[in-house]
Amino acid sequence: MLKVGIVGGTGYTGAELLRILVDHPDAEVTMITSRGEAGLAVDELFPSLRGRLDLRFTEPDTEKLGACDVVFFATPHNVAMNTVPDLLKTGTRVIDLSADFRIRDAKLWSEWYHEEHVCPELLSEAVYGLPEVFADELKTARLVACAGCYPTSIQLGYWPLLEEKLVHTDGLIASAASGVSGAGRQAKVGFLFAEVAENFKAYGVSGHRHLPEINQCLGWAAGEPINVIFTPHLLPMIRGIHATLYARLRDPAVALDELQYLYEQRYKDSPFVDVMPLGSHPETRSVKGSNKLRIALHRPPNSDHVVVLVAEDNLVKGASGQAIQCMNIMFGLDESAGLGAISVFP
Amino acid sequence: MLKVGIVGGTGYTGAELLRILVDHPDAEVTMITSRGEAGLAVDELFPSLRGRLDLRFTEPDTEKLGACDVVFFATPHNVAMNTVPDLLKTGTRVIDLSADFRIRDAKLWSEWYHEEHVCPELLSEAVYGLPEVFADELKTARLVACAGCYPTSIQLGYWPLLEEKLVHTDGLIASAASGVSGAGRQAKVGFLFAEVAENFKAYGVSGHRHLPEINQCLGWAAGEPINVIFTPHLLPMIRGIHATLYARLRDPAVALDELQYLYEQRYKDSPFVDVMPLGSHPETRSVKGSNKLRIALHRPPNSDHVVVLVAEDNLVKGASGQAIQCMNIMFGLDESAGLGAISVFP
Amino acid sequence: MLKVGIVGGTGYTGAELLRILVDHPDAEVTMITSRGEAGLAVDELFPSLRGRLDLRFTEPDTEKLGACDVVFFATPHNVAMNTVPDLLKTGTRVIDLSADFRIRDAKLWSEWYHEEHVCPELLSEAVYGLPEVFADELKTARLVACAGCYPTSIQLGYWPLLEEKLVHTDGLIASAASGVSGAGRQAKVGFLFAEVAENFKAYGVSGHRHLPEINQCLGWAAGEPINVIFTPHLLPMIRGIHATLYARLRDPAVALDELQYLYEQRYKDSPFVDVMPLGSHPETRSVKGSNKLRIALHRPPNSDHVVVLVAEDNLVKGASGQAIQCMNIMFGLDESAGLGAISVFP
Amino acid sequence: MLKVGIVGGTGYTGAELLRILVDHPDAEVTMITSRGEAGLAVDELFPSLRGRLDLRFTEPDTEKLGACDVVFFATPHNVAMNTVPDLLKTGTRVIDLSADFRIRDAKLWSEWYHEEHVCPELLSEAVYGLPEVFADELKTARLVACAGCYPTSIQLGYWPLLEEKLVHTDGLIASAASGVSGAGRQAKVGFLFAEVAENFKAYGVSGHRHLPEINQCLGWAAGEPINVIFTPHLLPMIRGIHATLYARLRDPAVALDELQYLYEQRYKDSPFVDVMPLGSHPETRSVKGSNKLRIALHRPPNSDHVVVLVAEDNLVKGASGQAIQCMNIMFGLDESAGLGAISVFP
Repeated sequence: MLKVGIVGGTGYTGAELLRILVDHPDAEVTMITSRGEAGLAVDELFPSLRGRLDLRFTEPDTEKLGACDVVFFATPHNVAMNTVPDLLKTGTRVIDLSADFRIRDAKLWSEWYHEEHVCPELLSEAVYGLPEVFADELKTARLVACAGCYPTSIQLGYWPLLEEKLVHTDGLIASAASGVSGAGRQAKVGFLFAEVAENFKAYGVSGHRHLPEINQCLGWAAGEPINVIFTPHLLPMIRGIHATLYARLRDPAVALDELQYLYEQRYKDSPFVDVMPLGSHPETRSVKGSNKLRIALHRPPNSDHVVVLVAEDNLVKGASGQAIQCMNIMFGLDESAGLGAISVFP
Repeated sequence: MLKVGIVGGTGYTGAELLRILVDHPDAEVTMITSRGEAGLAVDELFPSLRGRLDLRFTEPDTEKLGACDVVFFATPHNVAMNTVPDLLKTGTRVIDLSADFRIRDAKLWSEWYHEEHVCPELLSEAVYGLPEVFADELKTARLVACAGCYPTSIQLGYWPLLEEKLVHTDGLIASAASGVSGAGRQAKVGFLFAEVAENFKAYGVSGHRHLPEINQCLGWAAGEPINVIFTPHLLPMIRGIHATLYARLRDPAVALDELQYLYEQRYKDSPFVDVMPLGSHPETRSVKGSNKLRIALHRPPNSDHVVVLVAEDNLVKGASGQAIQCMNIMFGLDESAGLGAISVFP
Repeated sequence: MLKVGIVGGTGYTGAELLRILVDHPDAEVTMITSRGEAGLAVDELFPSLRGRLDLRFTEPDTEKLGACDVVFFATPHNVAMNTVPDLLKTGTRVIDLSADFRIRDAKLWSEWYHEEHVCPELLSEAVYGLPEVFADELKTARLVACAGCYPTSIQLGYWPLLEEKLVHTDGLIASAASGVSGAGRQAKVGFLFAEVAENFKAYGVSGHRHLPEINQCLGWAAGEPINVIFTPHLLPMIRGIHATLYARLRDPAVALDELQYLYEQRYKDSPFVDVMPLGSHPETRSVKGSNKLRIALHRPPNSDHVVVLVAEDNLVKGASGQAIQCMNIMFGLDESAGLGAISVFP
Repeated sequence: MLKVGIVGGTGYTGAELLRILVDHPDAEVTMITSRGEAGLAVDELFPSLRGRLDLRFTEPDTEKLGACDVVFFATPHNVAMNTVPDLLKTGTRVIDLSADFRIRDAKLWSEWYHEEHVCPELLSEAVYGLPEVFADELKTARLVACAGCYPTSIQLGYWPLLEEKLVHTDGLIASAASGVSGAGRQAKVGFLFAEVAENFKAYGVSGHRHLPEINQCLGWAAGEPINVIFTPHLLPMIRGIHATLYARLRDPAVALDELQYLYEQRYKDSPFVDVMPLGSHPETRSVKGSNKLRIALHRPPNSDHVVVLVAEDNLVKGASGQAIQCMNIMFGLDESAGLGAISVFP
């Protein structure tokens, strides 16, 4: 049984880690920290866990966390980088769900997060937590920087096209939309029910923090620097990310079923990527609460473009589920262990 | 491995039976019927099951259903009663999620459902599928009439008070509200998103089909005929029932913690009834997708009343989860087998 | 043209005052204050007003407010009572949408609001802003304490029954539910979209601040002290209050159409109270954005109770619309001036 | 007072025509037809109109409709084209909200609607009801084909860029999303609350009926045939369309404020088009219930693209409001008459 610690357990990704780990066959949460809620029983904050988890929040303590086999950071950016260097010295492995170790280039990171990175020396060591691409590196990783929610959907959606150099690398357009849980459990007016319900809008069109992450990773896929036009939107719903990806084919004559075959082959060993039959339109509810990411391919009429539709649950495949998938690989467990939940329909 | 058949598998309770049974350790769905969708792969209708269930809808056929150990009817009323008599003759046991066998009195049933009952002789044999009350009878039942969604919450909420004769039996008021999935997967204008969202209303205040069921069962609890004032409301959400139950105490001096103790004792062996700490307000989301039913007790200021708050998922504890709980008991399995899912939060 | 000032214009009731007053034929907003947003153009905060209102928030200033004919306080409790005494001295009339002047008994007010009232001498002068009952007093009022959102629906729903002494005054049960805008535009975790959507719960069952207001006003109707059992619930929607009111008839033989006639007569001169035909179930969406309050009467089967269903928009008839209705009466305008908007359907 | 008839008054666009026309200063609804609901009082179907409209649905009757000055068709496609030729002969002017007369090319129409057009001779006469472009033609029009909901947002969003030839005409990508009221008041499983809530998906990516309309009209703007890549999505909300439009600038050096100036100039006389300040992200709720369409311009980082964000209410500017705007122009009224409603916030 792996001993698991969670830092920052009062937010949505923390709660989601708990929901999954409580039923994980090979792991047990032995410590969960929260500065604000230390002393509180976890199931008092999250009544859905009543009778399933007998644990209290504690003050963060690097030494005690060091007794865990693995520690998840489910914290806002800027927390993990201040603790991880010491924690790694204890031998504990770390899976960070925040943005602190996602960008390889410390200067670029600082530009987007408006502060200095405190341990840039770890940036090159951190393995990017996108198991469909970096499974081998994950096996031996000490430190994993989980892929972000939007980036996961956009990267897995574009990956086969870029890897095979089938599309032009300029003019990649990712129009994506997220449920509001992606903003975390923070008390901001903009995320109140009365502000979000019956409303839809784009945001961050002139620049969003997930953009450098997307460009970095897709640059690896393409083998050259690329720049995506990324437009996030806020959806009046709790969970789910949907990405509509546009790309211009180098050879407009390529048939849709060739692309379909390519995607099916690329992901045939990926238990959590579902390439749907031609003609499908993946729905976010079909992955709600599940670690699946569903993809469908389309050719719009009279065009040299391909459109890739991607649906995932931002809190599962886009965050906590993916983090546990990484953990499974890191510790030699079945990649799917604990991640079998079927989405709740309707 | 129990062989399970489902009649009427295209609605929400059918889909929910599938979601739960696909991961059930001791049961396997071997047949699912639908007149309208015969031939269609189940996961084409329900993409959330892609990769998890390799089965097609078939035409209903009593003989073939007879090869199952147990058959669930997830059909509108009036279907089960036309098939069950023949099916029982094959030795298959039946769990009916519809209203066909809930009311013991055939005449009363006819008054509310506006047609003759075709097999009134089975009404006295049918065991009422409320495991917290009828577990013993369920063990040997050939035919189970699962408790309705509203009735489950109202009956389990009132039961200890009535059983212990602590409240007056007149003036019981049940103000309850349900998510719209309770209306089933039927194409009616009144259940369109544009009609239900941003709206709340009562309905059936002058008479609702669940009323005779509620009165019958609570009459058993009270040991005398009773009449509840039952006011259902339609909620702008998918899943969840919340019941706010009012009762006048015979002895207004009884302390709230005595009532609390009573409830905790009554349900201490019921794995799916959670009596919450004093002061709690159970939320429907804390049981979304789970078979739990949560109860909390209150005394309003300056009053001789007790208020019981109850939350359940109408499709799980109010329908498919309860049906599987019944199955577990009928076949000597662990009552909780397959029913451990934690509600998805947020 | 009345010159209108608004104190606290950044919340939902402030925004709603603006929406209505911008199109009011006899009134003009000349000043709107906000400590936090002083200097900001109003339509920058509320883009729905772009092109319709050329005004900036200013610091609150009693002297400048004194140049208005009437000032609305759309503030949390505890603000108005600290400014109103000085403001009244300028001759300006005041309409307070908060709770500061609703309760006649300063001691009772202090019990529920946990602080001393700073101007108890104004409590007896303040006219209770429920125009269907206090229209005469409003005509000459200097200070109006607008009825609360829940109280408006519950009081108008019960009024005819109590006034005519048709029901027992014990055992009045008000099960009510409100859209989340009733909580105001405050950044609290509990009102985030991800916390409120797909959820329903009761709250404050053991005591809610609207209770003393309800009891006070309905005591006036009944001519004796009364105590309502009041159970509020939080709805996953933005706007709307629905109250389901239960009362036991002194004479159970009274026919429903007699009650219907009573209500129709009581409200025949009230332009904003709509007594719906027998058999109706008022929907909150039928009053969304409108100052109407709709009522329907029911007799549940086999019972000596009457059930009154009431729907209103909590921000209009439950707050800003009602405040403007009071203003119209205070200044001798048509009671309906500016309040003709039809609810947006769907 | 214009005498107005409405054919097909039981759907959402019919209801919206009523809501607006009931308060229109220069028009009066004198007849509203519905085959299914003939005889029913309109306010029985739409309680929001209680006390505001005393009219009953009648059977459609061309002769009687001929007594109106103008008749709106708020019907599914294929209805108007079967009645309009006869109705025009009576001298009545017609505003069709359906798709029957939008496409100039009868053959193209047949390809997308899978039937023959019955009066192709009227296609060239029909004026396309997009007042910001065709105001002059509308003044004398006998027959108006109102622009569709998606097309209105996409055409007004792209128009200045194409008219001024600032962008490449290939690779125009319109990623748009609509609230579910756009599907009309039809009882289909796919539009049930339990299917739409907490869900987001694309649809019709390989071909949607609004595409030929979009291409036709934007071809007029560009002065050459064009082909848009149009991807509609279904939003879990009632009202609102949001379009995110991508275009590649011919001259990437063009500054954003030059584009801003262009848009402001183009629409400076259009009372219902609001070009928002640079940096804005228009929200659909800011136009809910209003005839406004809001536009904002962005340049994504490191790209030669411009992104145009557009928000409208699909039932108002996208349908009934626009139809009344056309009527105002046709009959020499103030273009804004009756269309001043401010969106309901929140």
